[in-house]
Amino acid sequence: MKEINIAILGFGTVGRGVYELLEKNASLIYQKTGFYPRIKKILVKDLSKKRNKNLPNNLLTTHIEEILEDDDIPIVCELIGGINPAKEFVLECLRKGKQVITANKAILAECGDEIWKEASKYRSYLGFEASVGGGIPIIKTIKEALIGNKIKSIVGIVNGTTNYILTKMLENQLSFKEALKEAQAKGYSEADPSLDIKGWDSAHKISILASLAFGIYIPFSKVYVEGIENIDLLDLKFAKDFGYMVKLLAFAQKEDRGKLEIRVHPTLIPENHVLASVRLNYNAFYITGDFVGDILLYGLGAGKEPTASAVISDIVSAMEYLSFKKEPFIKYPVVEENLEKFIKPIEEVEFKYYIRFSAVDKPGVLSKISGILGKYEISIASVVQIGRQKKKGSVPIVMLTHESKEKNLKKALKEIDQLEVVTALTKKIRILDL
Amino acid sequence: MKEINIAILGFGTVGRGVYELLEKNASLIYQKTGFYPRIKKILVKDLSKKRNKNLPNNLLTTHIEEILEDDDIPIVCELIGGINPAKEFVLECLRKGKQVITANKAILAECGDEIWKEASKYRSYLGFEASVGGGIPIIKTIKEALIGNKIKSIVGIVNGTTNYILTKMLENQLSFKEALKEAQAKGYSEADPSLDIKGWDSAHKISILASLAFGIYIPFSKVYVEGIENIDLLDLKFAKDFGYMVKLLAFAQKEDRGKLEIRVHPTLIPENHVLASVRLNYNAFYITGDFVGDILLYGLGAGKEPTASAVISDIVSAMEYLSFKKEPFIKYPVVEENLEKFIKPIEEVEFKYYIRFSAVDKPGVLSKISGILGKYEISIASVVQIGRQKKKGSVPIVMLTHESKEKNLKKALKEIDQLEVVTALTKKIRILDL
Repeated sequence: MKEINIAILGFGTVGRGVYELLEKNASLIYQKTGFYPRIKKILVKDLSKKRNKNLPNNLLTTHIEEILEDDDIPIVCELIGGINPAKEFVLECLRKGKQVITANKAILAECGDEIWKEASKYRSYLGFEASVGGGIPIIKTIKEALIGNKIKSIVGIVNGTTNYILTKMLENQLSFKEALKEAQAKGYSEADPSLDIKGWDSAHKISILASLAFGIYIPFSKVYVEGIENIDLLDLKFAKDFGYMVKLLAFAQKEDRGKLEIRVHPTLIPENHVLASVRLNYNAFYITGDFVGDILLYGLGAGKEPTASAVISDIVSAMEYLSFKKEPFIKYPVVEENLEKFIKPIEEVEFKYYIRFSAVDKPGVLSKISGILGKYEISIASVVQIGRQKKKGSVPIVMLTHESKEKNLKKALKEIDQLEVVTALTKKIRILDL
Repeated sequence: MKEINIAILGFGTVGRGVYELLEKNASLIYQKTGFYPRIKKILVKDLSKKRNKNLPNNLLTTHIEEILEDDDIPIVCELIGGINPAKEFVLECLRKGKQVITANKAILAECGDEIWKEASKYRSYLGFEASVGGGIPIIKTIKEALIGNKIKSIVGIVNGTTNYILTKMLENQLSFKEALKEAQAKGYSEADPSLDIKGWDSAHKISILASLAFGIYIPFSKVYVEGIENIDLLDLKFAKDFGYMVKLLAFAQKEDRGKLEIRVHPTLIPENHVLASVRLNYNAFYITGDFVGDILLYGLGAGKEPTASAVISDIVSAMEYLSFKKEPFIKYPVVEENLEKFIKPIEEVEFKYYIRFSAVDKPGVLSKISGILGKYEISIASVVQIGRQKKKGSVPIVMLTHESKEKNLKKALKEIDQLEVVTALTKKIRILDL
């Protein structure tokens, strides 16, 4: 039996998932390929920590050198997460000529300049299917299945926590805080939920997907990001009245010879679009290519078992590379020095907008607001003004606009928010008429 | 520039799509891989046929030998379709050591015993992404992305024509015939639509997917098949009243150590399941694995450009194989002599059923029918009997049953249909509570 040795760095949720998968299905892989993947070492921080598994004594180590220096370990899976020390471990392994697999969004989206360069230089296999979308094969699909296509756009619901929150808010009439609490109780969200709800996790993921789809490393820092922390239930309901659902979308688009648009923000999408039916903590990727047209991949984007499934698919690719002593065939993203010329700033993008003003209930208010919008060439597609209330006070005015430049809208809203009749900061959500 | 020569057999819709894709995007593939795919020969039946393309004169040939004997053509795409002569061409190319790509469902589902054996024997690459699901990467997903999983089930809407018909019937209140006419007008259906509406196309596809997922060649002839030609609008509407949608599902399932179930038939699925939202001519594949959980792939399952996209993804795999002189790493399905022991006959499967009886509007009818059902141990979950009509005549009685064995239901319906009070053949549709 031809065995291939593997090391795992980090024995958290994903590491345990990979261990359990191989315990159960390594023989299945042997049957399908003729090679048996065997875990030889697991790097942990603390040997004395109590572990559920009956792990053989010699499996655990706290010394990365035991893995780096062992030429009998050709495949290393980095499943630690975070930037340090994960990044250095990955770079060291690449330099040692090992085949590397990582589930680490952060190092790919924030340190891709180093990672892609070293992977290309040392011609090592670097698998990262598990970094985006859990068990959904989105990396393989973009990299291999759609290789004959110019990718036009990727539109994704790529964070389960925020999608769960938005779903629960609308379906169960919850406030953002209540829905967040539910997500945390379900174990979907981290103790510090900022990474999810501020959109950063989604931004990491779209950075990776765009780099792959367009062949140029687009770091996280170039992604325009807004989270869902300011979304009110009221806005989800108004949106629905207009025939839209609000989703936190990760978006990347490049027209032929045009600049790249890349961003993450809450977005109104038509409620009859397939992405609008993605509920709870599910993820979905909607990709458009010049030949394939539109395809959608859907599933759970996180969790121990699905993520392990993705890591294993990369392990088998690494085994194949090893067994034929071959090098990566499809190139990694290129690191460009001057990225600005490739990326369109959000201020220059044109959107339709959903806008909700809070204003006093007096005659002439709508005229003032629409006057300012007109000044900035923002034309109104439809408007709902809630009828006069019994008690005096603030009323919502909700509008959908035609396409206008982001920078014009910003200026207009700034001016409107200074009006005396406007009682609270105006809310805007961008619309995507998929 | 490293060029790799390709021959195309057949210059119909898909062949032209592949030609056009390479005309447009071959340089993209060169940029991503360092190899340039070049079409060297196209096999056609008739040289004198008028063609839109300004094809170079020396590209076309009517002699397969010019391709088979040319050692400078290592990759051949069979895009002729049908069994003969496509099958012989594929086998000859495999024997010559060429890398073969085919979009041909029929030869894989009906002659897989020969094809898989020869591909394994000659250790040739055989790509067939385009045989199922157009540009949706379902083959790559099952074969590579889910390789660490025991596949539990595949549930697919794999034929666009029939899905279009069922969608239009319900949404526009059309009869089967009217909706079929519309599908034909749209160019979705063949002049002879039997392959689609009788479920045979779907059966070809599930045969290929099940062979891949379970590692054993499951020929088309072992798939239980029913089409949609007997579905009435009335049944779609009653199903909806019960909270179900009717879809033509292709289904394959294997429990650990259990037998394989494989079939194609109209099926009631819950209307809030993601598969129920697959409308018109879209395809979707819903796959469950022991680690990945449930994932869904969705898109257009046919058409010139999407299918070309799939062929190109296989061409790039073939180029990779060539450039490293490597052999297929993941094994082909095994051909078993005695398939019966692996497959569960439909008579032994337990289903819930939707049943619609047509009966005279007299007292005691329901009692007679339910008496016979009881005799065969079929218990009723819910029943709708339409109120007495003003005119005397036949009325529908609609039931949902609990799980019962197919063979029992068949016997019961046979007996019921012989009752004098029953005025037309009883309709049954199986239910899948996904």
